[in-house]
Amino acid sequence: MGGTNTVFGIVDARGNVVVSASIKTGAHNDINLYLDDLEKGLNMIIDQVGGKSKIKGIGIGAPNGNYFTGSIDFAPNLPWKGKIPLAEMLRERMDIPVALTNDANAAAIGEMTYGAARGMKDFIVITLGTGVGSGIVVGGQLVYGHDGFAGELGHMIVRRNGRMCGCGRQGCLETYTSATGVARTAREYLSIRSEESKLRALDIASITSKDVFDAAMEGDALALEIFESTGALLGEAFADFITFTSPEAIILFGGLTKSGDLLMNPIKHHMERNLLNIYKGKTQLLFSQLKESDAAVLGASALGWEAK
Amino acid sequence: MGGTNTVFGIVDARGNVVVSASIKTGAHNDINLYLDDLEKGLNMIIDQVGGKSKIKGIGIGAPNGNYFTGSIDFAPNLPWKGKIPLAEMLRERMDIPVALTNDANAAAIGEMTYGAARGMKDFIVITLGTGVGSGIVVGGQLVYGHDGFAGELGHMIVRRNGRMCGCGRQGCLETYTSATGVARTAREYLSIRSEESKLRALDIASITSKDVFDAAMEGDALALEIFESTGALLGEAFADFITFTSPEAIILFGGLTKSGDLLMNPIKHHMERNLLNIYKGKTQLLFSQLKESDAAVLGASALGWEAK
Repeated sequence: MGGTNTVFGIVDARGNVVVSASIKTGAHNDINLYLDDLEKGLNMIIDQVGGKSKIKGIGIGAPNGNYFTGSIDFAPNLPWKGKIPLAEMLRERMDIPVALTNDANAAAIGEMTYGAARGMKDFIVITLGTGVGSGIVVGGQLVYGHDGFAGELGHMIVRRNGRMCGCGRQGCLETYTSATGVARTAREYLSIRSEESKLRALDIASITSKDVFDAAMEGDALALEIFESTGALLGEAFADFITFTSPEAIILFGGLTKSGDLLMNPIKHHMERNLLNIYKGKTQLLFSQLKESDAAVLGASALGWEAK
Repeated sequence: MGGTNTVFGIVDARGNVVVSASIKTGAHNDINLYLDDLEKGLNMIIDQVGGKSKIKGIGIGAPNGNYFTGSIDFAPNLPWKGKIPLAEMLRERMDIPVALTNDANAAAIGEMTYGAARGMKDFIVITLGTGVGSGIVVGGQLVYGHDGFAGELGHMIVRRNGRMCGCGRQGCLETYTSATGVARTAREYLSIRSEESKLRALDIASITSKDVFDAAMEGDALALEIFESTGALLGEAFADFITFTSPEAIILFGGLTKSGDLLMNPIKHHMERNLLNIYKGKTQLLFSQLKESDAAVLGASALGWEAK
């Protein structure tokens, strides 16, 4: 479940995504209407594989999802406020065991089982989508913390008194480096600066990170500078993350990674520059090796085997 | 082993510190002269308990100590540069098994075994001494990272382009919040500001954190402001640390904790203020329950049981 879309699918015991589908998350302001649509979609794909008797469990990766309680708590990028006991609500509707975790934790399980982190015991997955999420693995185990809420690295404060965040605080990493953060940087640059840019031909209010990417690929200097500054903030933050758990790799996942080297090169440069000596040159920076939709579904499904 | 003193002792199987002693760390620019003194001191206390046959192993907590390799690598607060294979060097001299880790990791093991973290599975120990160190425990296990160097939280960058650090970078947490950082803040305030202060009666070059504490206890406004700003930086940093591993407690350890509420109150205030909603009011802030010298010796000794 992301802030924009909810992708769901059926995965077999060998890790093949047999069938998948999606619904819009943001379009449902009432959680019950969202669950009505999700239930319909799930029943449709379950029928395609021969009915509920074929299903062992449901795994969910959701923003601010809590593995211990099965609820989504105060997720700034979802339309539903407060605590949503999603695992329980879906269990009641579907009569199938359900397990839930953070969306980024699900991605980390997916990478460890099928992707770029196979064989690694210490790594961090950073998801760059509508928000910025993270799944932290230490010694082969996901870090849940004492309450199940560990690993909200998108809410590390990287600029004191910086941009307002959906979480109510200021200067969180995701306000600058999510896909929406990149679009926000574009709007900021266009309004306070005077250079020529291909971006000026667009409706400033509806500019997306994809628009910035397209302009950068055509050599637009302002768009290139936006990627440079986004990469710099991520590189500086990653250098701090490495100080924490010294991971073998940081794996980037999510929509914004389609920007490729435009984003990766400045991240690498600024990460290495900001690292403490003992960490320099030791942590790999990788893109996810899984298709975005598959990785989320595969990660969540790996959790489904533990569902109760 | 700290940047200033090296404390060593003999601990029995029940966790009693039977005998302890110390030497100056910083006074030895040559590692071999340091080891000469340490060997003399160790032999003296070992003789007091009946000789080497009584000793099972030696555990060492040292700045930048690496559990995997047994060496001290590029420790900015020690007089010896580069990589020092300390475990091996001491094993050769003493003919006793030796294990080594980060000094703050040793403190964390001490707190978990005998102190404030008994029964906790997720906590962080922050040592506030000559430098700032950390021992991070996740799910009951110390976080070593893929290379043994995880948990250098004193080198999280809290002010971009801030104070020069012994590590060669700028703005590290320890440049502001170690005992030496507090003294540095005092010198900075006294040179750029004009208020009256009891601190002005002292030789500015040799002011210590203890001087600032004494002045604050007498109600000196400038000294109180130094503790407020030090606590604010720590509180902000702790809010970010909680975002990472969501610990049940953060435990403060080391010389600067003698400042008590003068330091604890601003840390608590700024930590809670800066926390993401889901973490508010959940992480305890505690002082170590162990005598400082004992905690280090106890923690290192717990590691000694694993020595090879």
